[in-house]
Amino acid sequence: MADPIEFYFDFSSPYGYLAAQRIDALAEGHGRAVAWKPFLLGAVFKTTGMRPLLEIPLKGDYLKIDLPRSARRLGIPFTLPQPFPFLSVAACRAFYWLTDRDADKARALAKALYAASFAEGRDISGAEAVLRVAAGIGVEREALAAALQDPAVKERLRGEVQAAIAKGVFGSPYVIVDGAPFWGHDRLDEVALWLERGGW
Amino acid sequence: MADPIEFYFDFSSPYGYLAAQRIDALAEGHGRAVAWKPFLLGAVFKTTGMRPLLEIPLKGDYLKIDLPRSARRLGIPFTLPQPFPFLSVAACRAFYWLTDRDADKARALAKALYAASFAEGRDISGAEAVLRVAAGIGVEREALAAALQDPAVKERLRGEVQAAIAKGVFGSPYVIVDGAPFWGHDRLDEVALWLERGGW
Repeated sequence: MADPIEFYFDFSSPYGYLAAQRIDALAEGHGRAVAWKPFLLGAVFKTTGMRPLLEIPLKGDYLKIDLPRSARRLGIPFTLPQPFPFLSVAACRAFYWLTDRDADKARALAKALYAASFAEGRDISGAEAVLRVAAGIGVEREALAAALQDPAVKERLRGEVQAAIAKGVFGSPYVIVDGAPFWGHDRLDEVALWLERGGW
Repeated sequence: MADPIEFYFDFSSPYGYLAAQRIDALAEGHGRAVAWKPFLLGAVFKTTGMRPLLEIPLKGDYLKIDLPRSARRLGIPFTLPQPFPFLSVAACRAFYWLTDRDADKARALAKALYAASFAEGRDISGAEAVLRVAAGIGVEREALAAALQDPAVKERLRGEVQAAIAKGVFGSPYVIVDGAPFWGHDRLDEVALWLERGGW
């Protein structure tokens, strides 16, 4: 089987959320697996000098129109949580700790965290909120609470963020298929075409 | 007939060039006209604090992959001219001077300027280059040369740029359909759907 499709996203990225609703089915339709790779856009912004989308004059106003409109077109529930943007460090640490133990459950956690924030509009920035969502899918609370404070888990996340930057990831979502990069939820149809044709 | 679709673009925007190859046919397919509205991204960047795409670390590298790949998928010839980005003030002034006299010819000039820069890779930043392209479609050289220096034409362009910013235009291409804004050449399929459904 070919290598998994790499799916980079930030838990606080609304377009990452939209892509997350579609990426597994898209890949499966072409006989491919997906490696889910959350990272921290804030760390990447330090490299690129970019800023959170909604803070950019004019562009921020546009996105408040484009986001719900994109979600409606795709039939995906969407709420912009408050506060926004929010810190997703705890969510990321939880994901990487869990994926080293049970990759399927880690993916379920990622989906549950995205649903909590962008479907239900809940604040998932704190450790307590992440623990609650994780408990909802059967993750043992005490073990995860300890992991969120574990220097090894923190280091694991730092390494993933550095690896993402080294691969050129500058935005969320960002998909890499057999070395070919695609940025944005609006490139997913092109990703499907790329898989179908094997490039062009 | 409904209002024309507003098509905002910078002559130095490669994604604007890609959209320019498709916008007229797309609108015509839905019985709509297109108002072509070149503007100066540099002036908008002063409002938004954004920067030319290729100058952004990581994102610039990605765009050098995405641009020719997008063009190949659409079957559109593409060359990134040198220097890039370039000043498009002369091109814009020529367009607005001409459109007040002959709107069809102004659109033909816009297409010829885009073809010279992004299909043939020529430098169209200077007045001399713009005069040469314009002469190629039958625009009288002396009259246009005088217009490029005319304070009234300069003021006409300034007014158009301010009007674009007032409408929220922050990038190129940017399409407004009956008040609904769409940013990016990758939103053209969505524009077509919007026209078909009358929104959603």
